Amino acid sequence: MSDTILADLPTPCLLVDEARMKRNIDRLARHAASLGVTLRPHLKTTKSVDAARYVLAGGNGPATVSTLAEAEVFAEAGITDILYAVGISPDKLDRVIALHRAGCRLSVLLDSVAQAEAVAVACGEAGIAIPAMIEIDSDGHRSGLTEDDPALVEVGRVLHAGGAELNGVLCHAGESYGAVGRAAQAVFAEQERRAVVDASQRLRTAGLPCPVVSVGSTPTAHAATDLTGVTELRAGVYVFFDLVMAGIEVCDVDDIALSVLTTVIGHQEARGWTICDAGWMAMSRDRGTAAQEVDQGYGIVCDEAGAVIPGLIVLQANQEHGVIARRPGSDAQMPEFPVGTRLRILPNHACATAAQHQQYHVIPDEAGAPLGLWPRFGGW
Amino acid sequence: MSDTILADLPTPCLLVDEARMKRNIDRLARHAASLGVTLRPHLKTTKSVDAARYVLAGGNGPATVSTLAEAEVFAEAGITDILYAVGISPDKLDRVIALHRAGCRLSVLLDSVAQAEAVAVACGEAGIAIPAMIEIDSDGHRSGLTEDDPALVEVGRVLHAGGAELNGVLCHAGESYGAVGRAAQAVFAEQERRAVVDASQRLRTAGLPCPVVSVGSTPTAHAATDLTGVTELRAGVYVFFDLVMAGIEVCDVDDIALSVLTTVIGHQEARGWTICDAGWMAMSRDRGTAAQEVDQGYGIVCDEAGAVIPGLIVLQANQEHGVIARRPGSDAQMPEFPVGTRLRILPNHACATAAQHQQYHVIPDEAGAPLGLWPRFGGW
Repeated sequence: MSDTILADLPTPCLLVDEARMKRNIDRLARHAASLGVTLRPHLKTTKSVDAARYVLAGGNGPATVSTLAEAEVFAEAGITDILYAVGISPDKLDRVIALHRAGCRLSVLLDSVAQAEAVAVACGEAGIAIPAMIEIDSDGHRSGLTEDDPALVEVGRVLHAGGAELNGVLCHAGESYGAVGRAAQAVFAEQERRAVVDASQRLRTAGLPCPVVSVGSTPTAHAATDLTGVTELRAGVYVFFDLVMAGIEVCDVDDIALSVLTTVIGHQEARGWTICDAGWMAMSRDRGTAAQEVDQGYGIVCDEAGAVIPGLIVLQANQEHGVIARRPGSDAQMPEFPVGTRLRILPNHACATAAQHQQYHVIPDEAGAPLGLWPRFGGW
Repeated sequence: MSDTILADLPTPCLLVDEARMKRNIDRLARHAASLGVTLRPHLKTTKSVDAARYVLAGGNGPATVSTLAEAEVFAEAGITDILYAVGISPDKLDRVIALHRAGCRLSVLLDSVAQAEAVAVACGEAGIAIPAMIEIDSDGHRSGLTEDDPALVEVGRVLHAGGAELNGVLCHAGESYGAVGRAAQAVFAEQERRAVVDASQRLRTAGLPCPVVSVGSTPTAHAATDLTGVTELRAGVYVFFDLVMAGIEVCDVDDIALSVLTTVIGHQEARGWTICDAGWMAMSRDRGTAAQEVDQGYGIVCDEAGAVIPGLIVLQANQEHGVIARRPGSDAQMPEFPVGTRLRILPNHACATAAQHQQYHVIPDEAGAPLGLWPRFGGW
């Protein structure tokens, strides 16, 4: 992790600290094991076959994805147990069936009778029992049926009677991203667990199968202490972590494994600004810490080796310009950064920042090893 | 522009309305001609060789870019007169020189003696007179020297004496994006013109050359009525326009040529929400209208044919979920959108939304013609 290893990289570019990433992956794997549940990592954060090998510990699943493009790339790379965790629409079922025919067990997600009917029709036409999960809403975040919704059993029946494989229930406590600290996040974890366990019991009482009971978000996955009745845990951003997760105390800033390498391109001395080449195109427009207690602007500034420089953030960003300045209220000394100085920026939101880039440059865990290069993909 | 032509597109995906794009391009081309200046379009919005052929009317320049990757792709496509309009850092000069050797006249931008010295050294080593523009700051937006800064002439001398080609001065009135209406934007246009003309006169008085006097931003380019002393005009987002530009009255909503095609994937009826598959990954995290009089959320909702549905916006977004709802305060009727319904979303910021996608699907101007497909590129 010396200056030398990064010297030839054109900026801006995306860096992964392999040691931190491995530590983050190990931490949640151990926690899931201690809770007696299967970990089904979400691959939407990394979108990289190379990173997936770490996240899945070299195995061929289970995994979660957010797009069919992810499912297709990871299936091609040999991953055979994938959950597509965004509500299915009928026009996408052709690609789901093609993945099954190619040997990938792809599960779909839904929360309405209309979707269940479309899945059942597709199963009948293709002669394939597509595994389907019913989405449960525990916190009003976005999608899903509440566990007491009369439609729950009806959706289950339409799937089960229609030739789909009713595979279980799933919940994502998206509102937990607003809870600060482990105790507050544990409340969401328990709410998530209770919603999905209650839903599973309603299905079973109605004589329907429900083998999989799935929960997860990065905050609740780390905060959960009892997952009785749950079979599987999902999380995504924990692989890299980011300033939003640090801001709600799921991780420390020193756990963040993703950063953007940037070069100083100018100064506005009267304003105390240093201009760098990491604008929002490199950082993304994500300002997730703006609603937190400490607004990190477009990111925290580190030196080239990755050590945080106290008091400095990327205060504002244009497409290819970042403005580095003292955090509002800070009396930190602004260091001299001559044009050409290399710095690193820790991002607000790893999923969003990584999506702006086509590859990761991987700083090896092992001293003296060369930089790694992991291609990244996007699209739908 | 029927339902049929879009029916086979997987969603979310990016659409360009060719007729609107041509109209936008023609409008500014005519305005620049009427002002007697050369238009040097910024290709950072489209990042597409196919789109560049329209923007440059089939010519090989002049063009503006925001990254060396853009310069390299467009040079490879035959564009020979390119301005890289982000402050140059010494580590990037190798690629600048390689482009010159490949036959592209690439100009660089700078605002400090340190950068000028680095450019001069590179010119000497390579035996190439790199054309350099000095950046002038007219409104405290970001970068550049004020026109009365003593460093201006010094920078010019270092370039001129050091073997670079002192090509001129450049200003970008970035603060004009906060000015609403043509009259307010014309004030910024005049401020931009005056700053750069004054700077050019200081250089010439000092016996230095200043052939090019360049101004531009989409708002000031359209609002300018007199560009005496200016030789060239730059603008980028005008090709597509977007809700930010409509919000400050540079264009109408009906001029916006870029949209995201999306499919309805669910509902939360108690909350009046329709969930679609255009989340922030498809729209970008750009919330540029949040600071405007009318906050458009993550975008305005249109039917599949592109007609605005009154009162509806994408109220919030997760990675692959958009929440369509009534605009706060609107009493518009929420239409029924069954799962599978196709809609289009007009974006806040065309540059940011387009950057989330790998290609444009182009709805042809000519009735009955097939959809076009324009690849897009990213990276640095």
